[in-house]
This record gives sequence, structure tokens and C-alpha cells, in this order.
Amino acid sequence: MTPAFDTLDTPAALIDLSRMQHNIERMQQCADRLGVRFRPHAKTSKCAEVVHAQVAAGAQGITVSTLKEADQFFDAGIKDILYAVGMAPHRLPHALALRRRGCDLTIITDSVVGAQAIADFGQAHNEVFPVLIEIDTDGHRSGITPTDPLLLDVGRVLHDGGMTLAGVLTHAGSSYELNTSEALAALAEQERVGCVHAADRLRAAGLPCAVVSVGSTPTALEAANLTGVTELRAGVYVFFDLVMHNVGVCDVDELALSVLTTVIGHQAEKGWVIVDAGWMAMSRDRGTSKQQRDFGYGVVCAPDGERLEGYLMIGANQEHGILARDGAADPDVVTRFPTGTRLRILPNHACATGTQFPEYQAVSQDGSLQTWSRFHGW
Amino acid sequence: MTPAFDTLDTPAALIDLSRMQHNIERMQQCADRLGVRFRPHAKTSKCAEVVHAQVAAGAQGITVSTLKEADQFFDAGIKDILYAVGMAPHRLPHALALRRRGCDLTIITDSVVGAQAIADFGQAHNEVFPVLIEIDTDGHRSGITPTDPLLLDVGRVLHDGGMTLAGVLTHAGSSYELNTSEALAALAEQERVGCVHAADRLRAAGLPCAVVSVGSTPTALEAANLTGVTELRAGVYVFFDLVMHNVGVCDVDELALSVLTTVIGHQAEKGWVIVDAGWMAMSRDRGTSKQQRDFGYGVVCAPDGERLEGYLMIGANQEHGILARDGAADPDVVTRFPTGTRLRILPNHACATGTQFPEYQAVSQDGSLQTWSRFHGW
Repeated sequence: MTPAFDTLDTPAALIDLSRMQHNIERMQQCADRLGVRFRPHAKTSKCAEVVHAQVAAGAQGITVSTLKEADQFFDAGIKDILYAVGMAPHRLPHALALRRRGCDLTIITDSVVGAQAIADFGQAHNEVFPVLIEIDTDGHRSGITPTDPLLLDVGRVLHDGGMTLAGVLTHAGSSYELNTSEALAALAEQERVGCVHAADRLRAAGLPCAVVSVGSTPTALEAANLTGVTELRAGVYVFFDLVMHNVGVCDVDELALSVLTTVIGHQAEKGWVIVDAGWMAMSRDRGTSKQQRDFGYGVVCAPDGERLEGYLMIGANQEHGILARDGAADPDVVTRFPTGTRLRILPNHACATGTQFPEYQAVSQDGSLQTWSRFHGW
Repeated sequence: MTPAFDTLDTPAALIDLSRMQHNIERMQQCADRLGVRFRPHAKTSKCAEVVHAQVAAGAQGITVSTLKEADQFFDAGIKDILYAVGMAPHRLPHALALRRRGCDLTIITDSVVGAQAIADFGQAHNEVFPVLIEIDTDGHRSGITPTDPLLLDVGRVLHDGGMTLAGVLTHAGSSYELNTSEALAALAEQERVGCVHAADRLRAAGLPCAVVSVGSTPTALEAANLTGVTELRAGVYVFFDLVMHNVGVCDVDELALSVLTTVIGHQAEKGWVIVDAGWMAMSRDRGTSKQQRDFGYGVVCAPDGERLEGYLMIGANQEHGILARDGAADPDVVTRFPTGTRLRILPNHACATGTQFPEYQAVSQDGSLQTWSRFHGW
């Protein structure tokens, strides 16, 4: 335990900087090897310092999930921003304000009504919005399937309406449900083929389509070939988490985000350790509950980050976590983890756990700490 | 839809003020009828205006789950505060600072080591901390069982150590797992009997025990008799939620907290409506998934709060929610819920959903809005 830790109140969200840097470089090398630009999704960290580290490693622009993220990251010096949630017409004035401030904001849509609203608003305000059409390559959520006639209709509404039809985008979110390299590589290929096919159809119809943007952390890491793709996106890789570990794309000792907590009591007969990180700190995300290995609310580590094999957070109330040995109760929890002991808990889902904290404590290898703020809300 | 709603960006956390006031009065009347003081748990709202409404209705003091809540509510004018999480020794300086500022802060413990740390720190700083001993009446989490010899040891350490042994406290958190009036009334009686027995044992040993504090929302509402109890606590009742509805203590139209969202797209063939409230807005809480009725990520209502029978949020990504009819797909979702339509979603768990928002929009019956801030973090 480094001395700086003693000054922290708990629960606290720790970022292990050497692990984060390793993860950033691993993904950037992946994009470089595949010959595509890399545009990280900033929704995972919502933190300027993290995004600056991604850009320093070679990222070209960022992806965001809210216009508040766009505002915050533009203020932090990032100009090239893709807002990758279907553009709601009532948010067009906000998008316009960002562009008028100098932000190179790209938006997305997957319907004629959405495209028409963008074109009408753009014309009314003399603004040429760059727009990507969202493609559905795995039935996961939103988007137009690559072969749907609707694709060309949407493209024409944007192009003929004077907007910049910038290209196509897809996100194979169903990759989170897989857990072998082979299945992930196959889904990455499905993502690529579908998105490239959509781009080809637009081009064959005489429409422009410069950008072909694909990605999710698992498919980005397992893609063997991205021919025809121009841009890769991924978010959670920057911290990784237990869900990604179960998906098979990281080791537990690559997880960069953890929650520092303090032992506040015991139920000795049950082998329970009570800590001051409950679901308010860990989030309610139980993403590993349906995976091959259920890690409860998280994996228990020593303060230096070393895993305490077999100990999990098995239950959580708002401000109480219950730690126990997986399997047979540990009769020695009181002496092993006395009141006041500090522990780190690795979370199921880094995006959800990060959200619970107004700030991160970034831990350098020498044990020094920096406080990095994280923004909250919309 | 009231005109004021049009000015709100989405997602937004709405409080229906007439429902909230109804819930506050219902619980206060319950405590009054049972002849006990009522001390609401402020962790649900983390909002000064909500707590002031509870106090105005008759609440005497509040309960908090973090010392940040104590700081914030003390600054908002609440003096009598119970911090109902086992006191971690490293937080004693913070508790001392609150008391030195004039806060009538009571703390809790359930171990000799915890009691000794409080007594030692109190003596070292000439502070007499009022302390409740936490009693375990249902095996749910923390606390000393009512018959455990340890109870008297902890009492003596506090009393002989010069602290104010203020009494005993229990929380039958397992009430959330029940769903009949009879079972809840039986658990309320178990909570009462156990806590009163612990108090009687302390008194029989010559130790003081003025306070006998019990409660959880379900047991508070279903208790038939609180003889020997001095104080009732409950938190989530102020908003209620779908978990409480499944427990059987409220109707769906008593839920005071909802998330306002906007339709941003469709997958017409699947009968899906895509909205801009995902798990970041609703939280990852899926508390109804193991109850008699699984409501997914929430129940869909019109903007005026009227339930749209059969429509649920069936899936959620970070900033996308997927709404669909429960059972057979609705072929008319595009015309029924056009892009731009506003809807309200009732959440599984009000405490977890509230946390996702920096502020509430409090909606009066005349449709006017007030923005109430909510604090975040520790």
C-alpha cells in the first residue's frame, strides 16, 4: 500500500495509470496494424485526461454518447467529435451551437424522418451537417440493415438536402455476448462486410461515402482484416472490466479501474467482510451474472492491485458491500481483513462504475496520485 | 403534456410532487398511528427540498448513509442526523467536525473493535459521541443478533468509555424479498421483537438504551404494533418504485419518480421504439428481475404519467433504451410513437435511478417545474 492511499477517503475510483496506458497502446497498435484511424469512445471515462492520453497515443477524434460530452471535450481541446447516438430533432440547436463554436461535430441517423429533420434544420440555419448513416450489422439495437432499400432513401434525403453524407457507421454490440476468439473474429468480419456493403451501395447510387466506421472493444481487438473500413471505434478497452475478461479480450490484471474500499465490519460466522463500497460505488451492473463466470459485484484485490484469489463481493446494498470467499466460508475473515483494512474491487462494467464517481484518483507507478474530474448527467 | 415539459432536455428525472406529498403523508400517518417518531432515510433523494417536505410533514431528524449526506443536509438546516452505516475509524475526524459545527450526529457500530475506536477517539478529543448499537434481526447484512453476548460487551465499551450509549437500531432489509401483507407484518414483528429484546438486555445489564429504532419501507408500512420501539425509519417510500410495487406496498400510480425520455428511432419490424434514456438514465438496477413481475428496465407512461399498459423498456445500452410491448410485437410503433414523442419511464429502484441525475425536475399539479439539485459522490 502506497502512503498516498492513506489520505484518500473511501470509496474512491482508482485508475492504474500503467495499466491504462498499456490498454491505450494495445488498441492503438491494433488500429495501426489494421490500417485504419482510431476514434475512441469517450463515454467510458468522461474524463479529459483519459481522452488526452488516447489522443497522445494516436487517436484521431473521439466518439461521444451525449452532447454534454461533446461540449465538455470540445472545451478540453478536442475538435473532431462524432456523436454516435441517433440525432433527436430537438437536439439540433445544441449540435448547431457546437458547430458554430468551431467543433467539427458529426451526427448520425437511421431514418428518413431523422434525415429530413437534419436537412430541414440545416437549410434553415445555413449549416451543412456532416452525417453518418447508422447501419445494423448484428440486430443489436439501431440502424438500417445493409441491404435495406431505406439506406438509399436516407442517403438521398441527406445529400439532396444539402448535408454532407459523410459515410456509414456500425456497432456490433452483440460482441459482448460472445467469448471465443473465433466467434469474435467472425462477428468483426460480419461488421466489416455489412458496413462496407452499405458504403458500396451508396457509392453505386452516386452518393458520397468517405467514412466507413466500425467497432466495439471485442471486435476491434479480434478483427483480422478491415479492408474497406476507414475508422475503428472502441470505448471500454481503456479500462477493461470483468465483463470484457469473460468475453476473453483481457486478463484480470489488465483492468485499470478499481474501487478502493475500507473494511467496516464482519459477520464472522458467515465468513462475511462488510466494506464501505456498496452498489452506489460499484453500480448495479451485474454484467457477469449471465456470463461463463459470475463475479458477483466484483473481484477483491489487495490495495496494491494484486488479486486475492477466490474473494468476491457477493452482495451489495447502497453503501455496504459484502465480501466473501467464493465457495466455502472463510473462518478467518476477522483476522485476515481487520476493520480498517483497505481493499480494491474490480468492477463488472467500467462505464457503469465510473459513473458513480465525480472524480477518479489516477495512481502512478510510484504511488503518487492525481485527481481527475469526471462529468455527470446530461 | 404540459408546456413546461417542452423546455426540458431529455433524459430528465421528474418528481411528481402530488404523489411525493401523498407518500410522505402516508408514511408519517403510519408512524403517528404507531406512536413512534419518524426519521426518514435521506439516501433515497439526496435532495434538500425533498427532506424539507418530509420534516414539514412531521419527521423528526433524518437518517443518512454517508457523511457527505450529513454535511449537505446539515448545511441545509437539518440538525438531528443519524449516520446509519457502521462507523469506520478513519471517518471519526469527519464525524467530530460535524459535531463541532453543531450537528447532533449519532453514529452506529456492531463490534467491540468499532466501539473501542469510537471511545478512544472520543476521549482523545473530549467528544461524547451518541452511539447506537446495530442489531441484526433478519440475517440480512450487519449487526449483532439480539441474544449474542457480544451486545453487552459493545454496550459496556461505549458506556464505560464515556460515550452516550444512545440505544439500538435494526433494519430488516430482507423485507424487500417478500410480497404479502402477512409476511411483511410478521417480519415487522420480528424486527420489533428482536430490537426491543436487545434494548431490554442492555437495560437489564444497567446500561442506558433510550432509542429503539427500526424500519424499512415495507415493514414500516405493514407493522401492526411497535410497542417498545421509539423510532421508525424508511427511505424509498418517498418516491416508491417498481420493486416496492412488487413487494406489494404501493400501486404503480403512486410512483413519484420517473425518467422523461424522447423517441429517437424505431426498429419497426421488431416492434421496437428507441429512446434516449438508456441504463445511464435508468441505472443498471434490474431489481424486478427476480420478483413476481419482471418490468425490464421500467414501465412506459405517457408524458402526463398515465401508464401505457403493456409497454416496457425491454433493453438498455448506455444512452439507448429499447421499448416494446410485453408479449407480441406491436406492428404500429412508428405511428404510435413517432420520433420526438416524449414518454415517462417508471424505474425499478428509485434510489439507483435518482443517483444517475445531478438534479430533479419537480412537477407541480399545474405543470410548473422547479429544478432541485441532488448531490453525487462521497
